[in-house]
Parts: sequence; C-alpha cells; structure tokens
Amino acid sequence: MAEVKLMNAKGVRDFLPEEKIPRQRIVDTLKGIFEMYGFSPIETPSIERLDVLAAKFAGGEEILKEIFKFNDQGDRKLGLIYDLTVPMCKVVGMNPNLPRPFRRYQIQPVWRDGPIKLGRYREFLQCDVDIVGVKSMVADAEILSIVDRAFRGMKMDFVIRVNNRKLLNGIMDYAGFGEYKMKAILAIDKLAKIGAEGVKEELLTLGFEKKEVDNVLKILRIKGKNPEVLSQVKKFVKSDEGMEGIKELEELIGYCKKMEVKSIEIDLSLARGLEYYTGPVFEVYLKNSKINSSLAGGGRYDKMIGMYLGKGEYPATGVSFGIEPIFEALKLEKKTGESRTVSRILVIPIGDTFEKALPIVEKIRDQGIPCEIDIMGRGISKNLSYANSLGIPYVIFLGEKELKEKKVKLRDMKSGKEEMLTIEKVVEKLKQ
Amino acid sequence: MAEVKLMNAKGVRDFLPEEKIPRQRIVDTLKGIFEMYGFSPIETPSIERLDVLAAKFAGGEEILKEIFKFNDQGDRKLGLIYDLTVPMCKVVGMNPNLPRPFRRYQIQPVWRDGPIKLGRYREFLQCDVDIVGVKSMVADAEILSIVDRAFRGMKMDFVIRVNNRKLLNGIMDYAGFGEYKMKAILAIDKLAKIGAEGVKEELLTLGFEKKEVDNVLKILRIKGKNPEVLSQVKKFVKSDEGMEGIKELEELIGYCKKMEVKSIEIDLSLARGLEYYTGPVFEVYLKNSKINSSLAGGGRYDKMIGMYLGKGEYPATGVSFGIEPIFEALKLEKKTGESRTVSRILVIPIGDTFEKALPIVEKIRDQGIPCEIDIMGRGISKNLSYANSLGIPYVIFLGEKELKEKKVKLRDMKSGKEEMLTIEKVVEKLKQ
Repeated sequence: MAEVKLMNAKGVRDFLPEEKIPRQRIVDTLKGIFEMYGFSPIETPSIERLDVLAAKFAGGEEILKEIFKFNDQGDRKLGLIYDLTVPMCKVVGMNPNLPRPFRRYQIQPVWRDGPIKLGRYREFLQCDVDIVGVKSMVADAEILSIVDRAFRGMKMDFVIRVNNRKLLNGIMDYAGFGEYKMKAILAIDKLAKIGAEGVKEELLTLGFEKKEVDNVLKILRIKGKNPEVLSQVKKFVKSDEGMEGIKELEELIGYCKKMEVKSIEIDLSLARGLEYYTGPVFEVYLKNSKINSSLAGGGRYDKMIGMYLGKGEYPATGVSFGIEPIFEALKLEKKTGESRTVSRILVIPIGDTFEKALPIVEKIRDQGIPCEIDIMGRGISKNLSYANSLGIPYVIFLGEKELKEKKVKLRDMKSGKEEMLTIEKVVEKLKQ
Repeated sequence: MAEVKLMNAKGVRDFLPEEKIPRQRIVDTLKGIFEMYGFSPIETPSIERLDVLAAKFAGGEEILKEIFKFNDQGDRKLGLIYDLTVPMCKVVGMNPNLPRPFRRYQIQPVWRDGPIKLGRYREFLQCDVDIVGVKSMVADAEILSIVDRAFRGMKMDFVIRVNNRKLLNGIMDYAGFGEYKMKAILAIDKLAKIGAEGVKEELLTLGFEKKEVDNVLKILRIKGKNPEVLSQVKKFVKSDEGMEGIKELEELIGYCKKMEVKSIEIDLSLARGLEYYTGPVFEVYLKNSKINSSLAGGGRYDKMIGMYLGKGEYPATGVSFGIEPIFEALKLEKKTGESRTVSRILVIPIGDTFEKALPIVEKIRDQGIPCEIDIMGRGISKNLSYANSLGIPYVIFLGEKELKEKKVKLRDMKSGKEEMLTIEKVVEKLKQ
C-alpha cells in the first residue's frame, strides 16, 4: 500500500477548529455590519478566464506575475482570482441592468503565487465592500462609517488615516514633479515605514531635484487636527485638481461627522500602492500595537470599471478588510478565545443509561445549545479529559439516580462546581 | 484602450444577491444544526499537492482525470481539491493528537474539470459533516439525525434511504457473484434510474449468469416496512459479512428510533457509486418532487483514512449535503424568496433633509435593522422604483414636517399603506 507524504502545498494553511471558530466569528461580525448598511452578498467564481484577470488596467504587472495559471480540458486559458475587484468589475459589466447604487459585499479566498514572507500566504481570505454608481462623497463616508463600526465592534483601538489622490496630485504639482508624480507618490507612500529622511533619500535617488523634494517634505511635515491640516495645505496647493481634492476631503469629513465617525485623521503621505485610485484613499491602523500593517484599506476608483467596459468614468468606492492582520491583532490581544470546539455540553452516561440519555440530548439541542454525548462508551475520567482538552465548558452526568429524579448533574468544568438540575434549568443557565 | 470580452470561464457561475442570499441562508441553517450537535468547523486549502490529491485510494480514476492541475513558481505540482474528504484525511494524518471523536464540518467550494451537464458545474460548494474515530453505529445514527433535522428544518418532504455495504456484499455472495461483486453492485445502484428490467439487462450484458441475476432480483424485489425487509432478507443472506451488515442495520435503526429519526427506509439496492464505503450508506430523496437526484448522501468508510496513513482501520462516517440540488428544490417550491437585497428600509429624504436623516439611519442600524438611505439625491419616484426593483419591503419618507414632529412616514411597499411613526415604533414593527 503506497503511503503518501502528507504535507501542505507551500504558503497555504489548514485551520483547525481553534483557529476556524474565531476566524468565522470575525467574518460573521463583519457580514452583520455590512448588511445593516444594506449591502448584499454576491459570489463570483474562483476561476476566471485569464484575459479577464490579465487586463492591463486591472491588477498591474506585479500581480499578473503571481496568477496561478492553468488550462481546462478544452485548452482554455484560466487563472485563479487574485482579488475581488476584478470579478466585481466583470459582474457590473456583464449585468448592465443592475440597479444603482449597487451595494455589494463579497468574502472569498483569493490566490497569489508570490514569495512567502512573514504574514503573506498564497491563499487568503479577501473581504470587500463597495458602492458602485455614486459620485457623491457620501458614498465614501458610508464606507468609512462601516469601517468605523466594524473596528469598534471588535473593540479595537484604531485610527482611520485618510487622504485624497487628487490632493496628492496637487501636492506633486506644487513640488514640481510634473509627469513623474506617480513615481514620487509611491515613494511618499513609504513615509510611515522609512521616515521623512528615508523618503527624502529615495526621492533624490529617483532623480528628483533637491528643491522639489524640499517642497514636498514641507507639506508632509504638516501635522495637527484635521481642519488645521486642511487650512495649512491650502496655502500651497493651488492647482484645480488639488483644490478639488481638498474640497472632497472637506465634504467627506463633514458627512463623517454627521454619521458620528470620529476616528478619522488626515495623513497627507497616505497614497496606497495601487494606481487605480482617483479620489479619497484610507487605511486603518491600530494605536499602541505591535502590528503596524494596515487592517483595512480602500478608496475611490472612478475609472477602473469604465476601462473594463471601454466606457468613460464609472464611479465606485470601497474597502477591503484584511482578515489576516485583524485575526493576528485579536490573537495578540487575546480576544480570539481558547476553545477547540463549538460544543457547550458533553453528556456522560453513567452505567447503562446511554439510550435513555439520547432523547435528553436531543431536547438540549432543540433549545439551540450545542451538545454532544459520549459515543465511544468511555469511562468518566477519559470523558472529563476529552472535555478538558477541547475546552467544553459543561459536562452532564446522567446515571440511574438522576433519571429517577428527572434531573441531571451539571458540572462547571472551570470551577468544578456540580449541581442537580432539571433540563429546563440547565438550558436557562446556559442561555444566560 | 483594449476592451476585454467579459465572460465567465466554462462551467462556473456568478451569484448575484437574489441567488447568493438564499444560498447563504441554506448554508447558515445547516451550520447552525451541525453546531447544535457539537461539530466544529475546519477549513483546508483549496490548493493541495498533486500527490496528496492523486493517491490511488482517494477519489478513484474518474475523479483524478478531472483535477485542475498546475505548477507554482517553484515548479511544484499542485491541484485544486475535488472533494473535502481527501483534505480531511490529510488533516487527521498530519494531526495525530486530535482528540477523538473528531467531529468536524467543512463547507467550501471544490472543483472538477469534467463535462458540463445539466446541473453539473466545474466549481461547486461542498458541505461535509464527519465523525472520525468511532466504530459504534451510534455515530452513523447521529449523522442521520443531523440529516433528518436539516431537511425538517428546511420544511422538505423527504426520505432517507439506507442500506449497508456489508449486507450488499452478503447479497452478492448469495447470488454467486464472487469476486465480481463490486461490478454487480455498481449496476444494481442504478435500480432507481433504470428499473429492475434495466438492471437485469445490464447484469446479463456484464456476463453474469441468468440464475445469479434472478437470485439478486429476488432480493431487490423485497419491499415493506424496515423490520419486514430485514426479516425477509435474513432468509437468504447467510455469509458472515452479510449477517454483520444486517446486525449493523438493526443497531442503526434502533439508535435512530431513540433519536426520533423517523424518515428512514431500507433500500436494498442503494449502493452509492464510490468504492470506499465499508458499512452503512444512505441517500436523501424528496417525495413527490420533480427533482429525483439525491440531496445528500454518505456512509461509513473505515479504511480510507488508514490507507492514507499506511495504517489499518480508522473508523469514520459522514454525510455530504448537495447545496446545488437543495437550492434547486427550494427554488422549485418557491421557498427561496424573491429579494435582491438584504435591505429592509430605504430612507428617502424630502427636500433638504439629507444630513438630518443620517443620524436617524444610524439609529435604525444600531437596532440591527438593515437600512439604507438615498445617496444619489434622486426624486421620490426614482427612489420608489429602486426600492421596488430590489424588493426593499419598507420606505421611510423624511421631510421637514416629519423632522418637526420627531416622526417618520413609513410606507409598506407591498400594501402601499403609510403611517406616521416614531423611530422606536418603526424598529418595533420591523422586528416583529
């Protein structure tokens, strides 16, 4: 009998219950919030035609190299999706009669055949929320309101850093970067990582002039409360596009105030790596945490869908939640729980009571309480160590005595306390 | 600007909200039931090493041809999973210290690069529940109890057809099929599709003798209540294995009775296509329905995990729910709903009340009621037709008059009835 070496492919993971349960909980929390805002779920295939995935304006060169590619039996060229934005653009394009605004969320795994670094995987969960068809900044504010509610819901200490691509372009115009502004923007995006001196060096290495670089750094040094930052930056940014960006930021902040989104901070260096953003951009960071990568990010991309359709602008804005860093953050703060099971009760029949215990187990389940019964006929101590190893919080002992009294003996596995209770009382206790 | 032809890969589908919402609901219902029985979720990668997927004792020749295969950048041979049983065997093998019984459920897409027939897709959701490590028939009874509860929960009119592979082998021994019994079993498995005459013809074509075929048909004609079928079949089946199969069936039915699983019918022709089953097998069918494919199926496979590990027997039993046929069945019975959104309320600001409406919207969301507000600044009639096209059940009109009275005008979109209510009353009404 040939034995197979059992191991995982590189860069992918199994999630046993102790990890899957809290991950599932995060996803369910997020789903609940998205739906409160009237966002509906969609699902698209994991497999798409390679030409759809590889469209030039989609993920950009770097991502295209990382597509898992293969052919089907009919020799059609296919690939695994690497994000959920491309499939959404496809869905919007293929369904021209979708009512606007199209408010959708989508939570699915995506794949990237890239280098494995700390915290990077080849298969990971993507979680996107987008509004398609609305130009007004109120759409972006709704997205930020969802973000705010989500992280508050997870009891995290966070800040949403916000910027605007039009304003960034305006800053670049002021600095004198002209047509090379995208290059400069990508360097500036590293400010948080490499500091002002690092950015300065990088910009000089890229061939920008010292005067231009000084111009930019002067603006990036602007700090303070949101209105102060805006009034400062207005002194320098004079181009139409830059002024438009400031106006958008002001509107966005105004709507956020009405929606009681209080966690917003303007960060003039925030750019986000992707080229397709056209207006507001934002990223979520934890305060006082070891985790310094962003937990969510997004922005407005008014041109991308239109490019897919060969049409003009097609307003859209959204956010992508990083399930991986969120889970890591909750783990660090010990908020993921320790349980290896969903079970809340293990029923242990004592003596010959197994068959009489079965209807009692069904009764507990009827009440919505996850319950299992020993089906291996093990002794008490083995059953207790099974309950302990899984973290099942309660055990019920059921012997002839208990059956006669129409009660069960409930043991709290943490305190060791035991009580004789009716099933109704057990259910009541566990529902508290 | 190059336009890309937007179309899906062959055999895969987009699910827009009107399909994703009811599919999600089915999955959530099933999850809830699995967890009531103390089954915990796990997740495994969609990508596995090809040698793990292609192990001879895994899916069998036919399935191996249908694996989507590709290499990663390091030229490692990989494939997409085609079921959830192989990954579970891998997990059990890689985690020898998992507590027993290991009760897990797993709901993920799987892929098969096969022919596209009606109702067959290349990417589809698999939903498996298994108990690993328990030899007793009580484990199989628990699986049937879950199945029973699930279909009752979906208000379907169903029957669980049950058989036993050991008994089937015993019947084959009685008929005289000797070492060719597996071939004969696969022919008999078609009884429901092609009828007794069809099976007879197929067996004769396969080269079995007329006397043998008559022997088998005599047994397959046994009908009646479960105890009658068992007492009839006992007259013929005398081999040790066959007797063991009958004993297992009797035990299983006994446990089911205690668990109040009433939907079980012995079907001596039921075999299930896969070779790896070793004991009880079952399939779920609808009564009085156009849909004649099974909605769920499973059984005991005591040898498969052991083969992966190069060890002996390793008891396991489980069920796989067919999300696709279940969804089709609910659609036929018009139980999937008509909604294209999760939204329950659309707030329409009248005049210049948009900003004042925002905190009200947030208040409704705080109460857990999915609510959206017009963010496109459209007129009343456009907003009403948007609500209609999505099937949003309620609309709130909010003008200066309403703001002054601290009320809103709630319109029931179905009846057209309008009421002036406080937000508290609206929430109360929608929570009913």
